Amino acid sequence: MHPNAALIGRPGGRALLATPALILDLPAFEHNLAAMAAAAQAAGLALRPHAKTHKSRAVAARQLAAGAVGLCVAKTGEAEALADTPGLNSLLVTSPVIGPSAPARLAALAARVPELLVVVDSPAGAAALSAAAQGAGRVIGAVVDIDPGIHRTGVADAAAALALARQVAGLPGLRFAGLQCYAGHAQHLEDYATRVMIAEMALGEMARAAAALRAAGLAPGLLTGGGTGTFAIEGGLGVLNELQAGSYAFMDVEYGAVALEPAGGGPFRPALFVDARVISANTADFVTLDAGFKAFATDGPKPKPLSGADFAFMGDEHGALFEAVPLGSLVTLQVPHCDPTVNLYDVIHVVEGDTLVDLWPIEARGRSY
Amino acid sequence: MHPNAALIGRPGGRALLATPALILDLPAFEHNLAAMAAAAQAAGLALRPHAKTHKSRAVAARQLAAGAVGLCVAKTGEAEALADTPGLNSLLVTSPVIGPSAPARLAALAARVPELLVVVDSPAGAAALSAAAQGAGRVIGAVVDIDPGIHRTGVADAAAALALARQVAGLPGLRFAGLQCYAGHAQHLEDYATRVMIAEMALGEMARAAAALRAAGLAPGLLTGGGTGTFAIEGGLGVLNELQAGSYAFMDVEYGAVALEPAGGGPFRPALFVDARVISANTADFVTLDAGFKAFATDGPKPKPLSGADFAFMGDEHGALFEAVPLGSLVTLQVPHCDPTVNLYDVIHVVEGDTLVDLWPIEARGRSY
Repeated sequence: MHPNAALIGRPGGRALLATPALILDLPAFEHNLAAMAAAAQAAGLALRPHAKTHKSRAVAARQLAAGAVGLCVAKTGEAEALADTPGLNSLLVTSPVIGPSAPARLAALAARVPELLVVVDSPAGAAALSAAAQGAGRVIGAVVDIDPGIHRTGVADAAAALALARQVAGLPGLRFAGLQCYAGHAQHLEDYATRVMIAEMALGEMARAAAALRAAGLAPGLLTGGGTGTFAIEGGLGVLNELQAGSYAFMDVEYGAVALEPAGGGPFRPALFVDARVISANTADFVTLDAGFKAFATDGPKPKPLSGADFAFMGDEHGALFEAVPLGSLVTLQVPHCDPTVNLYDVIHVVEGDTLVDLWPIEARGRSY
Repeated sequence: MHPNAALIGRPGGRALLATPALILDLPAFEHNLAAMAAAAQAAGLALRPHAKTHKSRAVAARQLAAGAVGLCVAKTGEAEALADTPGLNSLLVTSPVIGPSAPARLAALAARVPELLVVVDSPAGAAALSAAAQGAGRVIGAVVDIDPGIHRTGVADAAAALALARQVAGLPGLRFAGLQCYAGHAQHLEDYATRVMIAEMALGEMARAAAALRAAGLAPGLLTGGGTGTFAIEGGLGVLNELQAGSYAFMDVEYGAVALEPAGGGPFRPALFVDARVISANTADFVTLDAGFKAFATDGPKPKPLSGADFAFMGDEHGALFEAVPLGSLVTLQVPHCDPTVNLYDVIHVVEGDTLVDLWPIEARGRSY
């Protein structure tokens, strides 16, 4: 049992947590789910939240209950871990799945969710997926991925998308389900107008591919992509019919710097934190927290103490807080980049103020394979 | 069951791994254990490997079998997860333990290991540990931590060390076990002579504290510290009697750049890798791997493909390999910084060449609390 489980429901129990602990502010989280559901509906977009952010059935179930049409995952292992989420009718794997065992694992998974969708960006990948699905007697919806210009995944252009869709449509065990174009490079640009421009450029090839497919009698049902950074933009661009946002549920320091709406800011509240503790206070300039490289993602900005004080990493296990607080103090920091921070923890500590309300398992933590 | 478990022992099974997978080259690892055991013995130092690097009972048991006198851990949760390691007679927690539940958890742990040692750097911390140990009817060995000059943890100087040791010696449930001084800032300096100078400066206060304690009739049994970066230096300095090295067992890109011995290089071999797979190959300049921020630590240098090709992170789930290899290829990369990379995985894939020999659980992964 987790050492903090005994604190659930105890008034003031948050102050007693074993730390570092990943903290979810429940009211802020619920606000974020409602705000994105409303925004997607107003924009005429279906919402398929990306579960690579949270990796947790409890979070996913709440997103589905708030109106999401299904979930995205990045990896086969995440799909396996989250397939049993209550209310899940449709699951999309947003990265091409290549490897000796992954197609067969996905085909087995197709028996556990009403609709399984998997991104493809190569003839060989589609063929392997087809063989596995056929072997399992299942049908997988293949979504052709289009490169938004960063060359990470996806086919190069509309012509390649059409060719791959035609191949998919002819393969047993697969059905052609639509197109994906995820402009990852547009999500964190801080200026709104720049983000509009990049998102529009990125989706241009998808729009051309969709037109070519319609002309060829292969109308793409699904036009999926977008993220928290472009949630307010995609509706106006008129290319996507489905939004894959993930970070909106939690927010982080990185997205906190982005003008998510034309007026700046955005409707989402910081909901994800780490509670750390002062474990040494023998020097004049700072105190030492029990949270370092193993407690926060280090690919982006620094963690942000709620007090406004500065923070600096001090190695794997420690951080410096430049604030005069007593030994033993609990210190709350907003997470720098939510997805890889969540991936460090096994449970989410759900809080309302100073009360620990629940512990939610992060079932897909570490399931990058 | 892990999807790769079925591949254990199958010839060529490594090529079939679900990826990304954390890989331990067993012959290189065994070489490293033997090399460090021999070096410590030659230097007249006991070896107490730091388990924050590997977090695994299987690794720890092999270190103990190779002559280690015990283990270090950084956190209470690691201590709990590794206390049942076969052959473990002495366990040292190398960070001050502060918090409402941690002292009681440690006191409970004292029943499970023949000798439990815990670092203290404050009167309040020592008092809390004493109360918990007394309450559990146990004795914990308190090791007074001395600041090596980075102000992360530890008391400021020899006088403070003497005062805290005197307090500890008078507290029920505690016995004064010795001194710790870990010069973390000296470990990764690439030049050997600079590292000697910094290590010597850092240990100066420890030497003064040890002399003051002996004069006061409180001889410190344990003089513990040092790491992989100073393993060849500590013996000559003559302050420590015990070495806390961790990374030597695995090595990483970061330590690969350090001249560990006066002649440069050092006796340890790269033993820890990530096997990743090419999942997209639609662009001219690079191929895309299924390993990104969730597969490698990002606090240090970049992962290093064994082929010598360049690597770049492409987000949470992906990396770019600047090499023309076919879709589906397995690509092996040395880990950039071993400790926080290991902390991302649940199992170590133990290999001999192309054969998967075993899966070792990483029991203390994520146990930073």
